[in-house]
Amino acid sequence: MNRYFLDIAYNGTLYHGWQIQANAHTVQAELQKALETVFRQPIETLGSGRTDTGVHAWQQMVHFDAQALPQRLQYALNALLPADIAVKHIFQVAPTAHARFDAVSRSYEYRICHTKNPFLLKQIYRYPIRPDLERMNEAAALLLQHTDFECFSKVKTEVNTFLCTITEARWVYEGEMLVFHISANRFLRGMVRAIVGTLLEVGEGKMTTAMFEQIIQSKDRRKAGRAVPPDGLFLTKVCYPYELLPVEE
Amino acid sequence: MNRYFLDIAYNGTLYHGWQIQANAHTVQAELQKALETVFRQPIETLGSGRTDTGVHAWQQMVHFDAQALPQRLQYALNALLPADIAVKHIFQVAPTAHARFDAVSRSYEYRICHTKNPFLLKQIYRYPIRPDLERMNEAAALLLQHTDFECFSKVKTEVNTFLCTITEARWVYEGEMLVFHISANRFLRGMVRAIVGTLLEVGEGKMTTAMFEQIIQSKDRRKAGRAVPPDGLFLTKVCYPYELLPVEE
Repeated sequence: MNRYFLDIAYNGTLYHGWQIQANAHTVQAELQKALETVFRQPIETLGSGRTDTGVHAWQQMVHFDAQALPQRLQYALNALLPADIAVKHIFQVAPTAHARFDAVSRSYEYRICHTKNPFLLKQIYRYPIRPDLERMNEAAALLLQHTDFECFSKVKTEVNTFLCTITEARWVYEGEMLVFHISANRFLRGMVRAIVGTLLEVGEGKMTTAMFEQIIQSKDRRKAGRAVPPDGLFLTKVCYPYELLPVEE
Repeated sequence: MNRYFLDIAYNGTLYHGWQIQANAHTVQAELQKALETVFRQPIETLGSGRTDTGVHAWQQMVHFDAQALPQRLQYALNALLPADIAVKHIFQVAPTAHARFDAVSRSYEYRICHTKNPFLLKQIYRYPIRPDLERMNEAAALLLQHTDFECFSKVKTEVNTFLCTITEARWVYEGEMLVFHISANRFLRGMVRAIVGTLLEVGEGKMTTAMFEQIIQSKDRRKAGRAVPPDGLFLTKVCYPYELLPVEE
């Protein structure tokens, strides 16, 4: 058997997240249905991580096994998949490569627009207040000096540890869009949306950077801000410690 | 009575075009409903021109009359209007100003993507072939040397003349998107989509630039190419020969 990685993008608006589950419309279910049609047998897939209901991905990495690939697999999958899921690349990897366990870094973006934009429906969080960018970036920088983020984790979670190494956390205006870039070795459930909600309180002047740090130290989710909506959240990049070589098509 | 211009943007995906009509979901009907709610009386509007079913607008200009504007009208309209219609600016103009008759130039963009993009659903024309840009721009330049465009007009039309002065017609790659920019004093029904469809035949090598010019000279719609889908078409700018001053809010 050979192992392959798929680099896929999806608009999460209509999906109950990435992960397959009974009686729910999920990205993974759509992908496995398309793979099954091409390979004429069930194909299991495994993603680099879950994304929640309504969350988008520019890059989600997924592995699956097969004896060999049919010609023009990418074309066939894109024709079979709905318009809101796209296969961008296919890579052949080592048989032991693992889309989830091998990922050394994940990056997310959270996108905010202050004004109404009819062309980014369900792809931004519309937030009319212009927050204080400098203060938010001061607080965001503190995320790189801590490693326990229980305060930003959903309470119902199966993980054993709340330790994450955040390597990037900054706000920038990209045109009229205010974008939060965050990268870490791993993320907890609901973590980015809770961080963004709490940083916006700092940006609005409702919270000082010292209070923000105290929240991290408290490990108490109830002290952090509300989770912002999923619409603005994009998984943008998953990194592996090896080079990925696209399959020739 | 005072006259005002609204600068509005809309995602045309769910609408039967701009113009109000019986038993159809139109942008103008939504706008007039919002205006009626704010002003507590029916408000008639007039747009710079029609856009067809599924066609978008970054900038559509619309006029209406009122004794005075309530405070925060833009905010109120944006709250009342659905998410796919936005009021960007409000201008007070001379009582004789006319959104349609005074417009000296309209600009459209037609956007093509060669690959699947889950984030631009119904906002691009997905066209897998990479056409010959140089040949298409050679043919497009001929549009500036002619003025009768009956060959690109829908046959069922009420206009008296097919004369248009095209001032810009060029293809450029903007990132991965192939964009056709076209400006003219006026456009005929279905004109941009017929021009794009015909230019793509030139770009694919199915038609020479000489043949393209012969089509213009023939004044025969049947000789031109097929109309491309509305999804990729955006009204982007309407110009007036006077300065527009935003109303202070």
